[in-house]
Amino acid sequence: MSTERSFLAALRALPNDPAARGLLDDAAVLEIGGVRLVLTKDMLVEGVHYLADDPPADVAWKLLAVNLSDLAAKGARPRAALLGYMLGEEAWDLAFLAGMQTALASFAVPLLGGDTVSGPAGSARVLSLTAIGLADGPVPSRSGAEAGDLLWVSGSIGDAGAGLATLRGELAGSEPLVRRYRAPRPRLEAGQALAPLVSAMMDVSDGLLIDADRLGHASGVGTTLELEAIPLSEAFLVACGSDRDARLRAATAGDDYELLFTAAPGRASQLLALAETLGLPLTRIGRIEAGAGLQVTEHGAAVALPDRLGYEHGTG
Amino acid sequence: MSTERSFLAALRALPNDPAARGLLDDAAVLEIGGVRLVLTKDMLVEGVHYLADDPPADVAWKLLAVNLSDLAAKGARPRAALLGYMLGEEAWDLAFLAGMQTALASFAVPLLGGDTVSGPAGSARVLSLTAIGLADGPVPSRSGAEAGDLLWVSGSIGDAGAGLATLRGELAGSEPLVRRYRAPRPRLEAGQALAPLVSAMMDVSDGLLIDADRLGHASGVGTTLELEAIPLSEAFLVACGSDRDARLRAATAGDDYELLFTAAPGRASQLLALAETLGLPLTRIGRIEAGAGLQVTEHGAAVALPDRLGYEHGTG
Repeated sequence: MSTERSFLAALRALPNDPAARGLLDDAAVLEIGGVRLVLTKDMLVEGVHYLADDPPADVAWKLLAVNLSDLAAKGARPRAALLGYMLGEEAWDLAFLAGMQTALASFAVPLLGGDTVSGPAGSARVLSLTAIGLADGPVPSRSGAEAGDLLWVSGSIGDAGAGLATLRGELAGSEPLVRRYRAPRPRLEAGQALAPLVSAMMDVSDGLLIDADRLGHASGVGTTLELEAIPLSEAFLVACGSDRDARLRAATAGDDYELLFTAAPGRASQLLALAETLGLPLTRIGRIEAGAGLQVTEHGAAVALPDRLGYEHGTG
Repeated sequence: MSTERSFLAALRALPNDPAARGLLDDAAVLEIGGVRLVLTKDMLVEGVHYLADDPPADVAWKLLAVNLSDLAAKGARPRAALLGYMLGEEAWDLAFLAGMQTALASFAVPLLGGDTVSGPAGSARVLSLTAIGLADGPVPSRSGAEAGDLLWVSGSIGDAGAGLATLRGELAGSEPLVRRYRAPRPRLEAGQALAPLVSAMMDVSDGLLIDADRLGHASGVGTTLELEAIPLSEAFLVACGSDRDARLRAATAGDDYELLFTAAPGRASQLLALAETLGLPLTRIGRIEAGAGLQVTEHGAAVALPDRLGYEHGTG
């Protein structure tokens, strides 16, 4: 089995186009005749990215939402989707379609086409979606963070991971945590409002620590993340508490689909005012420094990095 | 198991956008700020759309080529591709990537991004590609054929099907037939040249008969296909002959990736001159009439339709 890391290294060595952003970003940005298209494609595999007994309507929602989250991170508004669908059991298929219709309507995105295939008997179902967005202004990359910038995140971190643990019977979490796992909300409005204010932005899909490390790496800077500053929800606090282990759990769990971004310190009051307007917390969780690598602190003292910073299952 | 037919009927019942062309065309056509984007997404499943022992570089070629064939049918030039890749055995993955690099370079298409996933052990590999093209002129649909138009096809029909039968040990075909199966050539140049001349156009992917029937159905007209006019290659003639069974075999085999189109009779000399210029045969194979349904004739006499007109595994 290839490791994803070695495959991606080979993929990135192919000759590529500036629009590909080195295959290091959440999405491609293609400028054609004054129009700025943002393109992303994410797949979900049964048993890997969703559970076989997850409700099909939730799987449909998630398939669209994870793609729209990439658009959100680039400040784009969704314009269209293409679906790659593997047929299975008919009741599941129809429930999936009904869920997809709800999700498409909720985000006002038309489904423009795609492909429908059959898989061999017993194969895991594979679902694919391509989302096409339009950006009206600047499209933040992962690579624009500069020493001196502050590191911010939207919403709360760790809820989806706690929801997954609940579904697996490993945690006594509440329904809101499960909803965060099954039905993530892409931060589209926030992404569009943040795009002109940030120096770098991405979505948190694989875990706060691994994604912060990627942002620092893409920008050629060091990242310091303050564990005590990570925003946790009430539901997470009830289920997991807020000690160091709980915070590390939240920061390595994945599936948050929040926005992680950097901005010059002078932007702070503007960002806090924007949070009020959006009704979505924007929380300063660290800082960017000259150098390289990820450092985690707790009340100023260095904390050893966990062995696993998050999931490695996505190119964006 | 859903039938593809019932799933597609449910899919087409979703509210949709004019750009989706009713999910009945080879591709979506999205106009944004004076730019005409043509969008398509096709998947290949191991054991369904390619053989597990097909060379990985050929699978890569085919994944790109089948998508570019949809762009060709809409008269578009390819601008970008996104890849959805399921990791497997490392040597296969790297050979696939090398083949993808060759294919991308051959068609001058940059890979802009996508997603890489792992599948559960033992699952069939699923590959997905999204191709984005630009159209400089009119974008022919499947639905523009009118009574009185003539029906044409590019190249030769049945080669890929004979190649697949050869690989399966069912036929003693030659290497050129196998190449047509494994490494189809999308008719990009022809598609762009034909787009302003045709009334309807699509690619032949699932079989000439089923695709001609789809074109007629989308256009609300009847289609008559003249069996004796179907263009057959030398390699096909050597392997299969040219009697009625051979011609029906060719017309129901699929994987041709030729262009099927209709044009007013007055266009005939222009089309034959274009064939000379392109170095690609363009052959009149039938006519469009008022009414509905597909009729097949041989030297003017009706021929009973075979039970199976082609494959039903693609929405375009």
